[in-house]
Amino acid sequence: MILLMYEPIEAHLERLKQIATGHDIVIAHSEEEAKALITDAEIVLGNRYFIQSLPFARQLRWMQSNSVGVDIILTEKQRLIDQNITLTCSRGIYDAELAEHTITLLLTLFRQIHRLRDEQHDTRWQRHRLRTLHGSRCLILGWGSLGKEIARLASAMGAQVSAVRNQPDDSQDDSIHVFGSKTWQRALAETDALIICLPKTADTHHFVNKSVLEQLPASAFVVNIGRGGTLDDDALWEMVHAGRLAGAALDVFEQEPLPATHPIWREPNIMVSPHVGRSLEGPVYKWQPLFEQNLARYLRGEPLLNVVNYDKGY
Amino acid sequence: MILLMYEPIEAHLERLKQIATGHDIVIAHSEEEAKALITDAEIVLGNRYFIQSLPFARQLRWMQSNSVGVDIILTEKQRLIDQNITLTCSRGIYDAELAEHTITLLLTLFRQIHRLRDEQHDTRWQRHRLRTLHGSRCLILGWGSLGKEIARLASAMGAQVSAVRNQPDDSQDDSIHVFGSKTWQRALAETDALIICLPKTADTHHFVNKSVLEQLPASAFVVNIGRGGTLDDDALWEMVHAGRLAGAALDVFEQEPLPATHPIWREPNIMVSPHVGRSLEGPVYKWQPLFEQNLARYLRGEPLLNVVNYDKGY
Repeated sequence: MILLMYEPIEAHLERLKQIATGHDIVIAHSEEEAKALITDAEIVLGNRYFIQSLPFARQLRWMQSNSVGVDIILTEKQRLIDQNITLTCSRGIYDAELAEHTITLLLTLFRQIHRLRDEQHDTRWQRHRLRTLHGSRCLILGWGSLGKEIARLASAMGAQVSAVRNQPDDSQDDSIHVFGSKTWQRALAETDALIICLPKTADTHHFVNKSVLEQLPASAFVVNIGRGGTLDDDALWEMVHAGRLAGAALDVFEQEPLPATHPIWREPNIMVSPHVGRSLEGPVYKWQPLFEQNLARYLRGEPLLNVVNYDKGY
Repeated sequence: MILLMYEPIEAHLERLKQIATGHDIVIAHSEEEAKALITDAEIVLGNRYFIQSLPFARQLRWMQSNSVGVDIILTEKQRLIDQNITLTCSRGIYDAELAEHTITLLLTLFRQIHRLRDEQHDTRWQRHRLRTLHGSRCLILGWGSLGKEIARLASAMGAQVSAVRNQPDDSQDDSIHVFGSKTWQRALAETDALIICLPKTADTHHFVNKSVLEQLPASAFVVNIGRGGTLDDDALWEMVHAGRLAGAALDVFEQEPLPATHPIWREPNIMVSPHVGRSLEGPVYKWQPLFEQNLARYLRGEPLLNVVNYDKGY
């Protein structure tokens, strides 16, 4: 049985039925339904109610998440491993939008759009000396499909791009220098913009902490487009507030929604982007084609796309 | 005699002296000095005091402006023509910064950075459905060096770009379709973002008027990065205010500074960028190498770069 934990549009449901001829496809419209239906499910498509209903699964083999980051699902990692359940994520689907939003946040900082907007509210016509992204040195933390797409766009905009990946040694990826875990902190002193697109795992919690931020020049900008918690938000705020960093634009936060009392809300040089790098969609979703493709692969016994590595956590 | 109407940094002045060995180089530090010194000047470099002192010129042959747009200088066009004075401008020097600022303004609109900033001031965490520049149809009005650089960057960001130039018929420039004056308005109904980078001439005054704006879809954005007055600001405001256009980001205005009473200041869906596409610089200026290069050309009797066509006005 194939259990859908979302409301499919008709065309998508029809395609799933064609792909899975002879299989039952059922939809969980509530948490209760999910808990009841998952008992007989071999496949679950969609996140909603999954964590709550997983303890009731008896023959689940595969779960397809509609998220890129699966850190929340992996709070149940041991249960997934014990029951030999394969987890696939929606990695790659949102790269184009997320990378565009990253460039938007970078340009917002370099061209000070957020401060110009503040001055507009004060009816203040004030010309400025502004910096440019072109010619600036960008360091991308995280070298997955999103990091690479950000690198492609930032290079096209004329930035000098390097990156960091989770390997001990440095490497070269086309024209991009990719620092390894042994050397990357050396790059910080020569970085104009630090772009964080790390997955959230045990290893990446507060990966960008006070000690990392202190190695950046005071003129540097920071963008977080990955997952909240990979950056120490409080340390970042302290550094920006003290003028030891030029500014930041954050799309993800340790706590979401960002609590109303958090000083980041009121920090002029920090731009709050409320987790819209991947913006709202529906009833048509970008992950529909991936779900259809992966279901076809599963039923034909072919390798699935976007399988999560339980050791790495992404 | 070579008259400088700006304060040169030492290194630049030294280079000018080397280039013009045997010629007097003098600096006008005030309007009075300019009026006195221009009498004997064969060459004027720099805008400052030029309009005011021009009536006192007796043997001026060449004036090099540090502006891209020379509409203000051309209020004295007849005098320049009568006295057979060649005018050169600083076209091209600021293309990289202006094109980057244009992409910034486009992305501000597509990703609604100005509205997110407003919500930040209200401590409002609100996720949104946002559009993307990639896949959107951009129409660039003005096909000079700046328009081409904007096209290059917008294409790299994934936009579908077409352009308009001041020729009767359509043409093709690499992969870009360039509409001519007979057909361009047909493109308006299928435009997601109209980008204005026109010079200011008698022909371009209110080139983008109410009738043009009314042909755009209500979902369209408008960016003006060229010269104020080529767009009818009041008509634009009315359309945005009435919800008949999705928004605009303006770097130039019919009246600058934008008067405090103008409703554009308070229009949520219009982003005011106070003429910072070319942002402040000094004491080192981007036009220094052009001035040096053109002076060398003049003294060797070679054709000057960036000669203004008095008929066209740019």
